[in-house]
Amino acid sequence: MVVKNAFYAQSGGVTAVINASAAGVIETARRYKETINKVYAGRNGIIGALTEDLIDTSKDTVSAIKSLRYAPSGAFGSCRYKLKTLEQNRREYERLIEVFEAHNIGYFFYNGGGDSADTCLKVSQLAKKLGYSIQAIHVPKTVDNDLPITDCCPGFGSVAKYIAVSTREASFDVASMSKTSTKVFVLEVMGRHAGWIAAAGGLASSKDCEIPVVILFPEITFDRKKFTAKVDSYVKKFGYCSVVVSEGVKSADGAFLSDQGLRDAFGHAQLGGVAPIVANIIKDDLGLKYHWSVADYLQRAARHIASKTDVDQAYAMGKAAVEFAIKGYSAVMPTIDRLSNNPYKWKVGMAQLLKVANVEKMMPSNFISKDGFGITEKCREYLVPLIRGEDYPPYKNGLPNYVRLKNIAVKKKLSDFKI
Amino acid sequence: MVVKNAFYAQSGGVTAVINASAAGVIETARRYKETINKVYAGRNGIIGALTEDLIDTSKDTVSAIKSLRYAPSGAFGSCRYKLKTLEQNRREYERLIEVFEAHNIGYFFYNGGGDSADTCLKVSQLAKKLGYSIQAIHVPKTVDNDLPITDCCPGFGSVAKYIAVSTREASFDVASMSKTSTKVFVLEVMGRHAGWIAAAGGLASSKDCEIPVVILFPEITFDRKKFTAKVDSYVKKFGYCSVVVSEGVKSADGAFLSDQGLRDAFGHAQLGGVAPIVANIIKDDLGLKYHWSVADYLQRAARHIASKTDVDQAYAMGKAAVEFAIKGYSAVMPTIDRLSNNPYKWKVGMAQLLKVANVEKMMPSNFISKDGFGITEKCREYLVPLIRGEDYPPYKNGLPNYVRLKNIAVKKKLSDFKI
Repeated sequence: MVVKNAFYAQSGGVTAVINASAAGVIETARRYKETINKVYAGRNGIIGALTEDLIDTSKDTVSAIKSLRYAPSGAFGSCRYKLKTLEQNRREYERLIEVFEAHNIGYFFYNGGGDSADTCLKVSQLAKKLGYSIQAIHVPKTVDNDLPITDCCPGFGSVAKYIAVSTREASFDVASMSKTSTKVFVLEVMGRHAGWIAAAGGLASSKDCEIPVVILFPEITFDRKKFTAKVDSYVKKFGYCSVVVSEGVKSADGAFLSDQGLRDAFGHAQLGGVAPIVANIIKDDLGLKYHWSVADYLQRAARHIASKTDVDQAYAMGKAAVEFAIKGYSAVMPTIDRLSNNPYKWKVGMAQLLKVANVEKMMPSNFISKDGFGITEKCREYLVPLIRGEDYPPYKNGLPNYVRLKNIAVKKKLSDFKI
Repeated sequence: MVVKNAFYAQSGGVTAVINASAAGVIETARRYKETINKVYAGRNGIIGALTEDLIDTSKDTVSAIKSLRYAPSGAFGSCRYKLKTLEQNRREYERLIEVFEAHNIGYFFYNGGGDSADTCLKVSQLAKKLGYSIQAIHVPKTVDNDLPITDCCPGFGSVAKYIAVSTREASFDVASMSKTSTKVFVLEVMGRHAGWIAAAGGLASSKDCEIPVVILFPEITFDRKKFTAKVDSYVKKFGYCSVVVSEGVKSADGAFLSDQGLRDAFGHAQLGGVAPIVANIIKDDLGLKYHWSVADYLQRAARHIASKTDVDQAYAMGKAAVEFAIKGYSAVMPTIDRLSNNPYKWKVGMAQLLKVANVEKMMPSNFISKDGFGITEKCREYLVPLIRGEDYPPYKNGLPNYVRLKNIAVKKKLSDFKI
């Protein structure tokens, strides 16, 4: 086998465990020196490939690469940059091949969600047409948990754990205060199209620790009357209530609930979250005191409370991607195949990118309870294994000691390219 | 010595470690059976005493009480209920004494902030006047860190750790995204009067992990031009920037920055946080993409990432309170006395409640950097030991297994009392 270099890039919104996948790719590649020479990473994702801004990961130590397992965010930088179709922008795809060729790159590992799976597929297709030999493997990553075929997506389990833990903790807090003060706590979570993350709020309540949690899913049209009636009934029964609201909840007119046309004193449009909107509804309709929180980046960056299952799977996906490449596969993606729930067992599978690209996995309707405000037992069985286990990072002076790599650039060989 | 019962109550906003103080009180009292018979807790704080709704903590097992060390929130319920002055509401103070007498209570442990220190003092004064023998000891607790004499307040260290960790994690996230997407992350934190909690955001950056963090303190009047210039300079230098904003930040006119007269489409006033306001300023003045988060209850309930120093001190304060009582003291509060910074050493001290009540400790001006947007080395030296150490709770199925006590009521002996 001819020794070639590999190219690895991180794409889209980063997660608490995408660097664990990077560690899986780099550490595994280092074990196959006879096939893969160096792993080059794209600085700021695919933009690094287009602009020939490659990082030589071999300049970082064994221990630094190992520490990637514990660091949230994208260690090489990510980007939101969607390559257009081959017809619309053949120029960019050709540039990619040109850069790969210049740096003797025979393996393309692309770590991202649905869009990057599509890009990965197109690169493999174009390379074939151009007669350039490259194996393109997609490494799954998305907190949205919306990739098809794989049982779950690395990044999701840790967000789910963060939301479940935070909802439980804040619920304990509001329960203590509810006699004379706050009675409702509202937490806004990510998930514009699917309610996977919001569903995790339902885990805060368990058989041995019952907590009244109302979930507002993007899948369910917001019904103000039904919602406030549900909150009211919980407050009457438990004395308090927690609400987990997805940023993507929509009103009956199809508009985001967060889009209430808020204006400041000068009439300027203001962008707020959906949590304060829901909180104001509770105050207006029920007259209850509330507190609200917007988790935003905290939820997907919270490596300090990452799920061990998720970290292990993220690493395994990176490792499997390299092993697939070594075995000669291309245009595929490693998947997480669930074998059983209890005990939770899973194995690495393989999906064809043709079947992954442009397919969005929605939450099954039987995961949402009949009244639309909670999760079913089926959903709980699915979610619980994904948040199981803790995998604490090392600390220094009270803070997680997250690695920062040297990220030394590979010498450029080509002329500049405008993106 | 005559054997008497003790009364313990939690007051005001709860914290991640107030139950550790409760464990300190109850476990220590159980070691002095010859002096203290039972510890009764007020259900929902002092309201439990007024309404004679007492909880018999002896009905809970050794292991359940031990588990309090790991549970956030107030296990017996807290309340926001400030007793008026003796002149304005002698009736309530007399009722307290009446309940204490009915249940043979000779020790009053009140776990709270400035207001409860004041109540504790008044109870001891009135009891003396009425000839009822009770030892009133205040157990310090407040995330606001504003009690005098004590070097720090239990509850603060864990919030500080949460904010420092979260700011570091979200900063790693925004740094990865900044090339093509989000460049500024805004985190809103608690602290209406003092910037202690906001200051903790400055710890996210350290010598070996530099992060551009701009802090907006309630102590510093918001100056829009200076603020956006600072953010702009950081984004130009680092490519991104994090902003930690205290909920209590005020404009030059003295109004809260969060109070921008927001109206919805129907002209109704809407309550939002200060984070979206700051984010909108960044968008309007600098045209930068932002994300924002409001930590709210999550920060003070986050027992999963509590500071070990804080947990130890919270427990020590509860323990010391009982030991002071055993030694015959009254109208006092245990304090945390700092002996040295490096290595951090502290011991339990004692403060007279006369010197604690109605005194608010503000952040020293030499803790804020000259430009008003950061913390000084002096502040860092003060803060770092308080967030040091992790003290993870036990987990079950991926979630912290926080104890819930039985909270069995003591049989009432008196007639009802309207509060």
